[in-house]
This record gives sequence, structure tokens and C-alpha cells, in this order.
Amino acid sequence: ESFISVASDSFFPIQNLPYGVFRPSAGAPARCGVAIGDQILDLSVVAEAGLLSGPLVGAKAAEIFSKPHLNEFMALGKEAWHEVRVALQQLLDKDTPTLRDNAELRARAFVPQAQAVMELPAQIGDYTDFYSSKHHAMNLGTILRGKDAALNPNWVHIPIGYHGRSSSVVVTDHPVVRPNGQSKAPEGPISFGPSKRVDFELEMAFFVGAPNKMGEPIPIERAEDHIFGLVVMNDWSARDIQAWEYVPLGPFAGKNFCTTISPWIVTLEALEQFKCEPEVQEPAPLPYLQDPHHNAYDIKLEVSIRSEEMRKQGLAPMVICRSNHKYLYWSIKQQLVHHAVNGCPMRAGDLLASGTISGPERESWASLMELSWKGETPLELPTGEKRTFILDGDEILMTGFCEGNGFRLGFGSCNGQVLPAPAVRS
Amino acid sequence: ESFISVASDSFFPIQNLPYGVFRPSAGAPARCGVAIGDQILDLSVVAEAGLLSGPLVGAKAAEIFSKPHLNEFMALGKEAWHEVRVALQQLLDKDTPTLRDNAELRARAFVPQAQAVMELPAQIGDYTDFYSSKHHAMNLGTILRGKDAALNPNWVHIPIGYHGRSSSVVVTDHPVVRPNGQSKAPEGPISFGPSKRVDFELEMAFFVGAPNKMGEPIPIERAEDHIFGLVVMNDWSARDIQAWEYVPLGPFAGKNFCTTISPWIVTLEALEQFKCEPEVQEPAPLPYLQDPHHNAYDIKLEVSIRSEEMRKQGLAPMVICRSNHKYLYWSIKQQLVHHAVNGCPMRAGDLLASGTISGPERESWASLMELSWKGETPLELPTGEKRTFILDGDEILMTGFCEGNGFRLGFGSCNGQVLPAPAVRS
Ligand SMILES: [Ca+2]
Ligand SMILES: [Ca+2]
Ligand SMILES: [Mg+2]
Ligand SMILES: [Mg+2]
Ligand code: NI
Repeated sequence: ESFISVASDSFFPIQNLPYGVFRPSAGAPARCGVAIGDQILDLSVVAEAGLLSGPLVGAKAAEIFSKPHLNEFMALGKEAWHEVRVALQQLLDKDTPTLRDNAELRARAFVPQAQAVMELPAQIGDYTDFYSSKHHAMNLGTILRGKDAALNPNWVHIPIGYHGRSSSVVVTDHPVVRPNGQSKAPEGPISFGPSKRVDFELEMAFFVGAPNKMGEPIPIERAEDHIFGLVVMNDWSARDIQAWEYVPLGPFAGKNFCTTISPWIVTLEALEQFKCEPEVQEPAPLPYLQDPHHNAYDIKLEVSIRSEEMRKQGLAPMVICRSNHKYLYWSIKQQLVHHAVNGCPMRAGDLLASGTISGPERESWASLMELSWKGETPLELPTGEKRTFILDGDEILMTGFCEGNGFRLGFGSCNGQVLPAPAVRS
Repeated sequence: ESFISVASDSFFPIQNLPYGVFRPSAGAPARCGVAIGDQILDLSVVAEAGLLSGPLVGAKAAEIFSKPHLNEFMALGKEAWHEVRVALQQLLDKDTPTLRDNAELRARAFVPQAQAVMELPAQIGDYTDFYSSKHHAMNLGTILRGKDAALNPNWVHIPIGYHGRSSSVVVTDHPVVRPNGQSKAPEGPISFGPSKRVDFELEMAFFVGAPNKMGEPIPIERAEDHIFGLVVMNDWSARDIQAWEYVPLGPFAGKNFCTTISPWIVTLEALEQFKCEPEVQEPAPLPYLQDPHHNAYDIKLEVSIRSEEMRKQGLAPMVICRSNHKYLYWSIKQQLVHHAVNGCPMRAGDLLASGTISGPERESWASLMELSWKGETPLELPTGEKRTFILDGDEILMTGFCEGNGFRLGFGSCNGQVLPAPAVRS
């Protein structure tokens, strides 16, 4: 328990301590912090005060945590992350007077979350998006190719993924401008203009910690050493643009206009106690993907929508999807190991996303493409409005949390509002 | 003409002045320079000496050019690049005494290329690979899907591209470790191990200069303001891995193990006089891709191979492909405009590659997949050895140049040797 009061339904008890990058107020320099209750502990301040003095991080703590990104801390690896976590849990404990009783330092070290501006937690060198939910792959395959050809033969052997665009990854609450692009209705003409099928994809993504060298694969036994922690992600997708462009080289302009992540990275160590039984892998994966400690994570996920009209009427967002990270077929370790097996270098701060996390039941389908079944069965909002895809002014709100014994461990929010497309000569 | 002597067949006359990042000797700090003859002019030294004093760059020149990457210079835009080019041509002119007659400064400002270590010229935020040669798309499509279905319907409307991996882009002479991966012979079992079909792809790539803001497309009239310059590129490809993985999300592990570029960025301004007639675009592109000044560049390209045995026998590399940048169907401006039309933010230092630049004739086919027609017709090396794909120890050497009136303007080399794959549990 911490001397900082934490509400019982808070996402940020002392068991969590997720990392983020924030400005204490708009315009102030960004630095690293951890969330605790409704506060942020400014790590640059506590490091500067000499309170993070462990052997692995201590000497460079002040420098590392005053950066506007967590890359250098991520690169230090698992032992270093553990050292800092233990130090912070000690420092924040209700029985530790160091910070608790130092009014001057406390005033400088804590910033209310309500007053801070969150930034991207890392400089993302490369961003990869996998396709690891079998339920989602089956749904999408059925929509695009029919039930019999739904799952491509490679899917159960390869954690299928593609490279995305790191320049358009943004943190929660960043506006999402509707993309212009080419599309073509089946048997129809080619048209150009604002996408008519903007969708969300509920995903989670992990940040790479310690890097591997180019040419040197990561064995699955050591995969966790290279995974820093997880965020919730919305892979905004323009289905009409994607459908026309994606053969044969994969998704491009239908995806790379925006990807939103939640601001707080929940570490693998904090998530350790939420490991759970994974989905059965049948057929068995190839040896390099076989994991003696194969597991999933029990993380509840939720997507809500709020239209302009709902906002006007003062209505709360409507939940349209409840899913769980445990529905992934390929684990995060398998994603990482496959990515690096050919010698591809992973760098600290690289982002690897899960793909849309749909579960078996309709309520867990994690995109509008699935929920409205390619636009055939609209959702009805509390205002009576209908939605097949996202309209201008709609907000999509995502979050995730683990249910602990008397506490919750959460991810903060991953929200975005879709704004009208700009005019382009067409 | 410059006071630095430039051999008549040199790639680096005063008309060129390509930008790169180098270390004067191994271990020395990297900084920016331009190539002239067989020398490098150290821009950090001339800027520090106050010799780059134009209104746009002057004040920050010393800081910008002492960085180990060109990103900040790239971000300044076309007018700033012009200012520096004019200043450097003046400074290097045989009639300008400033540097010519200052022995002390000259000794510090020039470094022999033979003694320098070249580095990546930019921090590459995102790397995209297009597919812009119709000859290549037809060849590959015919190999994979037969002649009638060779060209996908979207190809003549969209400059098709996919996101690649920026962490594995390296500069010439970096070793290329053969990737391990999954593959599957038609009707055969799935296997795992070192790729048996490592190939090259002769490409050129351009670096983005001035960025656009997220959500704000780049109109084609302004595309050149955002293009800094070009390099030669080898998109190393593992055909067996690629064939098994690429449906439906595109190339991934078959590509992301290594991509090599030449070290010197030849600017668009230097290439201006080599603009030429482009291939006919039929049907006409959509309005946002229509370019009143549509053009190609006449850049001769060449690929050679040298095996271990050829090296032992002291044989020169054998030329196996002669192609030309002008064979591209989609121009570099169209590639950029399409990439940003959905609001995708382009950053200074982003790398956009052309795709394999095959021409109409067999000698211009720009990959072994095409030259050996999927491995059916091996090439014969001067040693009597045969090659369908690349074997361990083989070097692939690429270069490119423009033929001017009494001078050549070249790109330096884009070379790599393939080394054996590491052992991975299989
Ligand atoms: Ca996705
Ligand atoms: Ca390529
Ligand atoms: Mg996205
Ligand atoms: Mg490549
Ligand atoms: Ni001028």
C-alpha cells in the first residue's frame, strides 16, 4: 500500500507502476514518470534527488529519466527494470518516510494526472502489426473469401505480421483525420475521396526492451528479457482503401494514416501474476516457436463509441466490444521470436502489435467490420443513430485492465475522435 | 571545375556534390560531408570556419553538419539545400582562393575517401518499398500467377507499396547474414532453416526532405520540395520465405533481414539535367497523381556478382544486369504524393524505395528471380560455376551513374557479401 491514496477502482495501484512520458503542464519539457493513483511520480525529480541508487541504473538514472522518451531505460534490460520497480515500490510504500515526509520534495515529485500532458512513451523506430487472433482471422477471412477459404494455410504455422508506419503512431486523444484514398466497389468504378469505411481495431502492443544484434535471432527462452511492457492500441483502418490496395503487398494507405496507443506502459513484471492458460496451438508450432512456458495474459479489454449527438445529449459512451488479451493464438513471445528469427534487429522502443483481438463470442469481436458484418448489420446507438462504420465526430474509446485480488491494474485510455477529411483534388 | 582534381571517369565531379555521413578514420566521430573527386569535404570543418554563411543555413550550419546524420539539413527544405549547393560549388571552384590557398584549413577540411568509414546518411524513421516497374511487376506476376493474371487490376491505378523495416537498412559493405525461416515447396512439407533462395533486387530510393504535417497531404506540384535526393539500393530478398508468408499481409521476414544502400545521396538538384521522357501512363492516373511536369531520370544502373571462387582466381566481378531508373512507371513524385494523400506524415530522413527496376530487355531484369526465371535457367560465372540464387560468400555489387556532357555523375557503390546463416533450433 502506498502513502499516495489510491481509489479502490483506480487503474494505478502500487502493484502497477506503469511508465509514461509527460509534461507537467502544456509547454513544459517532457520527462519520464510512473502513474500512482491519480498522480504521476516524476522520475527525473526522484532520480535527481538520488533516490534511485541501485547498482544497475543508479548512476545514469537522472539522465535517463529526464529524457522525453523511455528508450534508454528500455534498452537496459530486465534486471535494470526490476531494480527500479523494487526501488519505486519501496519509495512509495506507506511505511517509507523518505519521500512521504519530505514536503518540499513531494511537492516537486508529484504531478496530478489531470494537469499533465501525455506524450508518446518512446521514440518508435519500427512498428509491426501481427494478426494473432484466430477468431479475428477467421471472421475477416470469411467476410473476404468465404468460410472455406477463411484461414490461409500459412496462418497456423507463422505468426503472420506486416510492417506498419511508425511516424503516424500517436498517443491517446490525438485527433484522427479521416483519410482520402482510392477505392473500388466490387464490379464498380474506381473512386477517390474520403474513406467511407473508417473502422477501429482493438489491439494490444508491446514495446521491445533490450535489443538483439542484426543477424542474431532471439531464442524463445530469452524472449521475455526483450519485452518491456504493453499498451492498448487502436489500429484505425480504412476498409475501402485497404480492400482495393492490399493485393499483393499488404495493407498500406488503409492503415498508415493513424495508430493510437494508450500512454502508460504496463510492465511485464506487473503483469506476471495475470498469466493464464493460452489457446491450444494445433498443429504444434515449429521448434523455434515452441515455448516450454507458453502462456497468455488475462487482460480485459473494452471498446466504446460516442457520437456527436450522444455528446450533445450528455450520454455516456456505449460499450460495443468486450474482449481479452488471452484470446490471442500466438503469444507475444512467439511474435518477437518469429520477427527476429531471420536476424532482423529489434531495437529498444520498437512497437509490436497483436492484431485485432477478437474472441469467440460476437460481443468480443473487435472491429466494426466484424460487429456490423461488413456493414450489413448496423449497430444502434442510444440516440437511435445507426453505425456500420465510424462517422465524423465519433469518438472511439478503448481501455484494458486486469482484475487482481482486491485491486485493478489498468492501462489508461486509448481514445480518438475522427475529424473530417481535408479537400484533395479529385 | 574544381581545384580538387577529378578524374574524367570519377563519379564525383563538382556537378555532383552528393551528401554523406562519414568518419575520417575508424572510431572518429561521424559527421556530414560531400564527395568531390576521391576526397570528402568535411562540412563540419567548413561550417565551423564560417564558410557556409548563407541566410537560410549559415547560423546553424556548424551544428547541423557536425551531427552523425543529415536529418536536420534535410528538414530545412529546397531553398536551404540550394543555398548550400551554390556556396559549395563556389568554395570548390578553381578560381576561389578561400579554401584553395589556405593550406592549414585544406588539410583539415579534406579526407581521402579511401581512408574514411561511411555510415548511414540519415536516421531513417520509416522505410517504404514501392513496386513501380511495370516490367518487374509483369515478370514476377507471370512467374507467380501466370501471364494472364500477371498484373493485378489495382497496379495501374495505385503506386503499390508496403512498409519495410528501417532497423535493418545498412550502408554499403555491411555483411549480409543469410536468414533462417519457414518455407514450403508447392505440395511439399513445411521446412525451417537457412533460406535457399536469397536474391537481390536492384532499386533506387529517395530520402524525404521537408516533412508534411499529419493529416495534410502533399500536392504533386510541391512534391519536389520534399525530396532531398537518391541512393542505389539492394533489397535483399529470401524468395522461399517470402513465397510462404506473403499472403495476405505482404512481404515480411523474407525482406526485413537486410537492405543495403549506397552511402552518397545525390540531390535532386544535381539530377535536374538528367530528367527525361517517362514511360507512358495508360490509363491516365487519378487527378491527385496527375503531374504537369511528369518525368523520369536517366540513371544507368548496373549489378555485378563475384563468387568466392572468382575472388580466389583474381577475377573481376561479372556484370549480370544493366538497367535504368527511367524504366519506372510511377515517378518518385507520384510515390511520395500517394504515400501522403491519406495524411500520412513523412519525416525528414524517411526512405522511399522504387521497387525492383527491371526494364523491357532480359539484360535489364533486376533480380535473380527474373534472370534465372525462378531458378530454371542458371547464370554461368566465368569460373564455370552456376547460379540460380545467391550462395554464401557471393558478393553482389551495384552502382549507378548519369552520363553528362564530358562528365559522369555517380552514386558510389551498394555492395554486400552474403555470409552463412547462424544455427537455430529446428
Ligand atoms: Ca491491425
Ligand atoms: Ca523490393
Ligand atoms: Mg494503423
Ligand atoms: Mg530489404
Ligand atoms: Ni540560385
